[in-house]
Amino acid sequence: MSVAAAVTWSAIAEPDDPIACWLVDRLGPAPALEWLRRAATDPVGATVELAAPVKQADAAVRAVGRWTPRLEAAVPERLVERAERLGARVVVAGDEEWPQPMNDLGPRAPYALWIRGHADLGRAWTRSVAIVGARAATAYGEHVASGAAASASDRGITVVSGGAYGIDAAAHRGALAADGVSIAVLAGGVDRLYPTGNALLLERLMDHGAVVSEQPPGFAPHRSRFLSRNRLIATAGATVVVEAAPRSGALSTARHAAELARPVGAVPGAITSPSSAGCHRLIRDGMAILLGEPADVLELVLPLGEAVPSGERSEGSGPDFATSTERQAYGAIPRRGAGVDAVGTAAGLTVRETLAALGALESRGLVTRLGGSWHRVTVPAPRKNPPDNPDIPSQTIGET
Amino acid sequence: MSVAAAVTWSAIAEPDDPIACWLVDRLGPAPALEWLRRAATDPVGATVELAAPVKQADAAVRAVGRWTPRLEAAVPERLVERAERLGARVVVAGDEEWPQPMNDLGPRAPYALWIRGHADLGRAWTRSVAIVGARAATAYGEHVASGAAASASDRGITVVSGGAYGIDAAAHRGALAADGVSIAVLAGGVDRLYPTGNALLLERLMDHGAVVSEQPPGFAPHRSRFLSRNRLIATAGATVVVEAAPRSGALSTARHAAELARPVGAVPGAITSPSSAGCHRLIRDGMAILLGEPADVLELVLPLGEAVPSGERSEGSGPDFATSTERQAYGAIPRRGAGVDAVGTAAGLTVRETLAALGALESRGLVTRLGGSWHRVTVPAPRKNPPDNPDIPSQTIGET
Repeated sequence: MSVAAAVTWSAIAEPDDPIACWLVDRLGPAPALEWLRRAATDPVGATVELAAPVKQADAAVRAVGRWTPRLEAAVPERLVERAERLGARVVVAGDEEWPQPMNDLGPRAPYALWIRGHADLGRAWTRSVAIVGARAATAYGEHVASGAAASASDRGITVVSGGAYGIDAAAHRGALAADGVSIAVLAGGVDRLYPTGNALLLERLMDHGAVVSEQPPGFAPHRSRFLSRNRLIATAGATVVVEAAPRSGALSTARHAAELARPVGAVPGAITSPSSAGCHRLIRDGMAILLGEPADVLELVLPLGEAVPSGERSEGSGPDFATSTERQAYGAIPRRGAGVDAVGTAAGLTVRETLAALGALESRGLVTRLGGSWHRVTVPAPRKNPPDNPDIPSQTIGET
Repeated sequence: MSVAAAVTWSAIAEPDDPIACWLVDRLGPAPALEWLRRAATDPVGATVELAAPVKQADAAVRAVGRWTPRLEAAVPERLVERAERLGARVVVAGDEEWPQPMNDLGPRAPYALWIRGHADLGRAWTRSVAIVGARAATAYGEHVASGAAASASDRGITVVSGGAYGIDAAAHRGALAADGVSIAVLAGGVDRLYPTGNALLLERLMDHGAVVSEQPPGFAPHRSRFLSRNRLIATAGATVVVEAAPRSGALSTARHAAELARPVGAVPGAITSPSSAGCHRLIRDGMAILLGEPADVLELVLPLGEAVPSGERSEGSGPDFATSTERQAYGAIPRRGAGVDAVGTAAGLTVRETLAALGALESRGLVTRLGGSWHRVTVPAPRKNPPDNPDIPSQTIGET
């Protein structure tokens, strides 16, 4: 891999330009560059030279004008020098710091990555989760993004996101708060800390992670670059969409991740909140699994052996009945207490069944016998999540 | 079908008692009742008489003591008389008002249904949706339940639910507000308007729908009866769970509905709300589809031909680009405007591509040409749902 040629391509082709991707993949970065210089003056010769199907060769020659106007400014040594003055470095495929998962993009892998920050990008990326979502996030979405990022950080998982307001920023903040490694992939050069309001946050990321771009410093965050940037974020180990309107760019990240066979999760929210509509669509279309609690995020990304023990998950609580006859007998005990016969008749159980059920309930401390009368044991234990059995009466009503 | 025998069984067996179900299904209500009277005095003869596998015959004889203590009070004429004094009536399978979908329960179908209300139960049930959920509902859940019930009512769909506080009550209120037919299936007799706080609401249902029970008046809403009652609700055309904690009884309704091959939907909510955890579990386990908007409820229950046109659905809005080159060109136009060459270079497009894209954008009024310079057209049109492309800059930044 010619580093200089790869760096040049990162400066002359738009990210994810399909024709540039095809050309560089077919010829390699350096020969593709040489071909480009020849094609600028001899398009017919260049077409023949490609020895490709006519349609593709023609498309390549017709696209030459996309790249040649940028060639003059794309001197690799000067680009690298300028980056170094900013404290940035560049890595290409084959370098030790190159994140291997990016290679899953095939011909659509970036030619180079420009990095500002202390994290080793290659190592950080191997165990990572993308947490993405809407700029127009709600307090709920930011809370969830930040919590998910913090719990990922606690497990040594790198958080990957964009640099936007809303979910992106909340994810980075959550990771930073948990002393984690967080990486922002920018749509412009790493000198363009966009949006300005997040500049300080992005600078903090450089101390605890990195900001990354596939274009050299100086490139502006154009609209189309956000969409192509999303494919890089999607190479993280898993992708979590926290809040997204129906046309949110976060959905394109989710689609990329699904195409890359990465697990994709989406956080549900109120159906009255437009910020959750995109997440709901992803779940409904089967493109993302529903993440019902923060621990689900870890499940997406942790290897099986490290999966979150179910004890850490929140479970509903409430009285447990081993059998339906226990439930019937318990429910039939009136507030004032009653004998076995009365309980049995009210429950629709035989005397034998009633005695067996009451005995079992008694052994677990749920009912007690006072004289000839059975009573429920009222447990005043406070519960964080009250058991929720809709319309079960809190006290039974005696049979008339 | 012997009406008197069916009515008697509804008064002596607990709802969904598996042995009673087996017995009545095997012999028919009247012969089962005759068998019961003989079995009380001659258990050995009764066992032989069943001509069933030993295990089942034994179980039936052992269960006789569940039903005999209630026989004396279960005189059909008196039960019906008492019901009539309350303004209630009783229907059994084969009656015109019997809801046919209940037969899908097979042996677990109720022996009889006791009804108070003006609705024709059979007709109302044929086009119905169950809207169920937690007592401990949030304002969000009640809002959604009520809205879903109202839009079902607008389409002439009967709302079916329990009589509980929270989601059940909100669903009934939504139906009543839309002049719809709403039916509450109670866990006790139709004279037991439980909980008391909903008594007025349940009385209003009698004018615009009905309250229904599978047990005669006088029976109390015991704990276990709520669970068996849920199987009746689940025979509605579809079941929608609006909010449910992880152990909510609404989940049992959803399970019953899935077993009955009815469509089941669940409404998502904030993952920070325990009241939505059960819904999320249903969706995640593939037992319910995610209902992302009120119209989805109708889709569950309406025949295909009546499906909700997509125009009625909320869609995100925002500028549309026909091609990626259009997006690139548009994004590359600086605020001050620029010529074709500059736009092309900034966008990474050839001059020809840039001109084609700008021409197409111009024809749709998205860009305009002033002298030799292209500008974006700023449309100040207010939008209900602003387009949400995360971190796309609201104005482009010029290339350096």
